[in-house]
Amino acid sequence: MSIAETGAAPSPTAHLFSPLFAQPEGSPIRELFPYLSRPGMLSLAGGYPSPGLFDAEGLQQAAIDALQQDAAASLQYGASEGQPALREALASLCAMRGIACTPADMLVTTGSQQAFDLLVKVLIEPGDPVLVEVPAYPATLQALKLARAQIVAVPTDGQGLDTEALASLLAQWPHARAPKMLYTVPNFSNPGGTLLPASRRAALVELARRHGFAIVEDDPYGELRFEGQREPSIYETAQALYGAQAHPVVYLSSLSKTVAPALRIGWMLADAQLLRRCTIAKQTADLCTSPLAQLIAAHYLRSGRYAPQLDKACAEYAARMGALCSGLQQALGGQIRFVRPQGGMFVWAQLLAPQGYAGTPEALARALFAAAVGQGVLYVPGKAFFPAEAAQQAGLCMRLSYAAPTVPQITEAVARLGRAWAQAAAA
Amino acid sequence: MSIAETGAAPSPTAHLFSPLFAQPEGSPIRELFPYLSRPGMLSLAGGYPSPGLFDAEGLQQAAIDALQQDAAASLQYGASEGQPALREALASLCAMRGIACTPADMLVTTGSQQAFDLLVKVLIEPGDPVLVEVPAYPATLQALKLARAQIVAVPTDGQGLDTEALASLLAQWPHARAPKMLYTVPNFSNPGGTLLPASRRAALVELARRHGFAIVEDDPYGELRFEGQREPSIYETAQALYGAQAHPVVYLSSLSKTVAPALRIGWMLADAQLLRRCTIAKQTADLCTSPLAQLIAAHYLRSGRYAPQLDKACAEYAARMGALCSGLQQALGGQIRFVRPQGGMFVWAQLLAPQGYAGTPEALARALFAAAVGQGVLYVPGKAFFPAEAAQQAGLCMRLSYAAPTVPQITEAVARLGRAWAQAAAA
Repeated sequence: MSIAETGAAPSPTAHLFSPLFAQPEGSPIRELFPYLSRPGMLSLAGGYPSPGLFDAEGLQQAAIDALQQDAAASLQYGASEGQPALREALASLCAMRGIACTPADMLVTTGSQQAFDLLVKVLIEPGDPVLVEVPAYPATLQALKLARAQIVAVPTDGQGLDTEALASLLAQWPHARAPKMLYTVPNFSNPGGTLLPASRRAALVELARRHGFAIVEDDPYGELRFEGQREPSIYETAQALYGAQAHPVVYLSSLSKTVAPALRIGWMLADAQLLRRCTIAKQTADLCTSPLAQLIAAHYLRSGRYAPQLDKACAEYAARMGALCSGLQQALGGQIRFVRPQGGMFVWAQLLAPQGYAGTPEALARALFAAAVGQGVLYVPGKAFFPAEAAQQAGLCMRLSYAAPTVPQITEAVARLGRAWAQAAAA
Repeated sequence: MSIAETGAAPSPTAHLFSPLFAQPEGSPIRELFPYLSRPGMLSLAGGYPSPGLFDAEGLQQAAIDALQQDAAASLQYGASEGQPALREALASLCAMRGIACTPADMLVTTGSQQAFDLLVKVLIEPGDPVLVEVPAYPATLQALKLARAQIVAVPTDGQGLDTEALASLLAQWPHARAPKMLYTVPNFSNPGGTLLPASRRAALVELARRHGFAIVEDDPYGELRFEGQREPSIYETAQALYGAQAHPVVYLSSLSKTVAPALRIGWMLADAQLLRRCTIAKQTADLCTSPLAQLIAAHYLRSGRYAPQLDKACAEYAARMGALCSGLQQALGGQIRFVRPQGGMFVWAQLLAPQGYAGTPEALARALFAAAVGQGVLYVPGKAFFPAEAAQQAGLCMRLSYAAPTVPQITEAVARLGRAWAQAAAA
C-alpha cells in the first residue's frame, strides 16, 4: 500500500528524502478511507469511539470553566511535563485503576501515540531488537520501523501475549543485541480484543527483570470493561514485586477512548530518569501538549461526569459487541473463529478456508475484501497488524470493530460479510 | 547544563538509554526557571507572549462555537493533515501575508516546533550537514543534535543571515556530504531580532537552487511588525522565481505568538511529496493535532477578532521594545551594541568588555549573570543560542525579551542590568 504520487510534477526536494521516506507507506487503516465514502457502505473497520458517546455538553462546560477560571494557564505555554491540575486528576484516575502514583511519576503526552514515540526516541537505536506482540497496533509497528528497530514478533493466543513462547524465544535469543523493550496492550488489545491473565502479567515482569528489557504497557481500553474482573496492570504487578521506581515497566494510557480523541491527551508513568529523558525529547517534539486541552480535560475529570459517562459507554459497547458476535455466529457459523471480548472495541476473527480450497490464503483474503466492498461492508484485513516480513501470518484474519456502528448497522454489516464470504469462498 | 539526577535510586531502565540520552541536556532556557520564582525577580529571559494580550473572551466564544456547531469533528480523531476549516482559514492568513497557497499545500502541526521535527525525521540521516543561522533558536539546535545532524553554523549580522558568507562557505564546502537544509527565521529572528532584506532572500533562494538544499523558513513573528514595510517571504520569493511546487522552500508558522501558545497550532507549506511524507511521519508522532484546538482556532480566525487583536499586540510590543532600547542606552550607553528591532519579541545585545579587562569573555559573562541574578534581573546568556562547539562565539551576548514584562518593569529591569554590569566589569 505505498502512496501513489499521482500526477505530480517532479518534487524539488525528492533528492533530499531520507531513504526511510523515499517510498513511505502510510497507515494501512487510513488507506481504507476512500471506501468509506461510498454510498451505503457500513464500516467495521474504524478504531474510532462512537461519536454518540461523547459528552459534548460536559466538555463545553469544562472548556468554559478552564477559560474562565484558569485563563492565563489555558492560553500560555506550559511545562513540558504537563499541567499540575491534569497530572493530579490523572493520578487519581490511575488510583481508581489500582495504580499508586504521584503527579511526579507522570508525563502528559499528545495522545499515547506520542508517549510511545518518545520512548522510541530515548531508548532505541537503529538495529535494536524490540519485542512486539502480534498482531499489533499498526502505528506501533510503523514507529518502530521508522526508528529502524528490529521488530521481533511475539505470538499471542486467545489470552493475549503468549509468555511461554516469549520465555522460549528469550532462552534461545537469536539476535546479537539483547531486546530493549517489549510492547503489549494487555487489556482488550488492538486488534486481538484479548485480556492478559494475571499469571501471565507476573511472568512477563519476571522475564523483563531477568532479561533486562523494559515493558511498555499500553492501556487505552482497560476501563471499557463489560464483564469479568479487572486484572492488575503490569505496572502495579511490577510495583508489588519489586517496589516503586525499581521496575522497568512503563505505563501508557489515554483519554481518547473514554473522553474524546480530539483532546489528544495521553500520559506515561515511568521511573524518574526515563521520564526526565522523555520530557527532554518532548521539548523538541512539540514543547508541551496543548495546555488548553489539558485544562479542559482536568476540569472535565473533576466535574464528576467521567464515571457515569464511562458506564454509559461500557453498556453501549457491550450491546454492540453482543450484536457483532452473535451476528458472526449466525452468518458464518463454523467457518469463523474468534474470542468474544470482555471489553474494548475489537473482535479479531479468523475465517477458515473451505476444505479443498486450492488457492493461497492471501488470494482468498484479497477476494474476500473485494467481495465485502462489493457487498457494502468494510473491515481491516489482518495483514495491517503484522510486520511486513510476517504478513503471511495474517492469513484470513480480520479486525472487526463494533465501536462506531449502531446495533442495527452491525447486524446488517455482518449479514453482508456472510454473503461476501460465500461469494469469495465459492469462487 | 546537564540534568542533575538528584537523590535518585539507580534507574531500572538506565542501561537501556540510547547514547544520545545517556546524559541529556535540557533546554538551556528552561534551566533558568528556578530563578524566576525568586521574590522580586524581573525577567527579560522568557520568550512567552504577554498574557495580557490574549483574547480570552474571544477564544472562549470560539470554543463554544466549535463545540456547539462542530461537536462531532471537535471531539473525534481527525485527518493527520489537519481540519479542513482550519486549513482554509490559515490559507487566508497566508494570503494576507502575500503567500498564495491552498489548503492542499498545508499540514497543520502541533506548534511549528513539531513541523521542524517532522522535517528532520523525513530529511535528515545521522551525519547529514544542516545549515543553521547562528545565533539560533535553541530547540532547533537540540532537534538537530538529537537527529545526529552535523550542524553547520552560518553567520548573521544586523540584517540577519549573511548570504555572502553563506555563498563563500558553499563555494568551499568542507564536508563530504552536501547540505540537506538551511534553517532561518527571516522576520524578527529569535534571538537576533533582525529582519532579512529582500535582496538576501532572493540570494538565499538562488543558493538553495544552485546547491540543492531545502530552505526552512520559520516565521512565527512576521506579523508582529511595529515599523517599516513587510519583506516578501522567502517562500513567495521562490514561488515568484521558480513557480509554485517547483522550489525547495518550506514555510513554517504558528498561532503561538499572535493568538495563544496553548492552542499548539502551527503549520507547514511544502511541495506535495515532502508534505505527504511529513504527514506520514506525523501519524506516528501524534496521529493528528488536537481537532478541538484546531476548530477553536478556525472559529477564532473567522470571528474577525484576529486583526484588531494583532494591532493591539503590535502597539504594546512596540512600546515595550522602545522602553527596553532606550533603557539600555541610558543604563549601558557606549558599552553595549544592539540592533533596534522592527518587530518580534527580542533584542540581541552584546556588551563590550572594559578596556584592559584581563579575564576571558566567558568568565565575564558568568560574572555578569551572577551579578544580574543578585540584582534581581534575568536574561538568557548568549551561549544558549550557539551549538556547543561554537559556544565561545557567544562572548558577552545576551537575549533580552520585552514581550512579557510591562514598560515600568522593563525600565526597572534595565536599570538593574546596568548595575549588574558595573559590578561584574569592575570585579
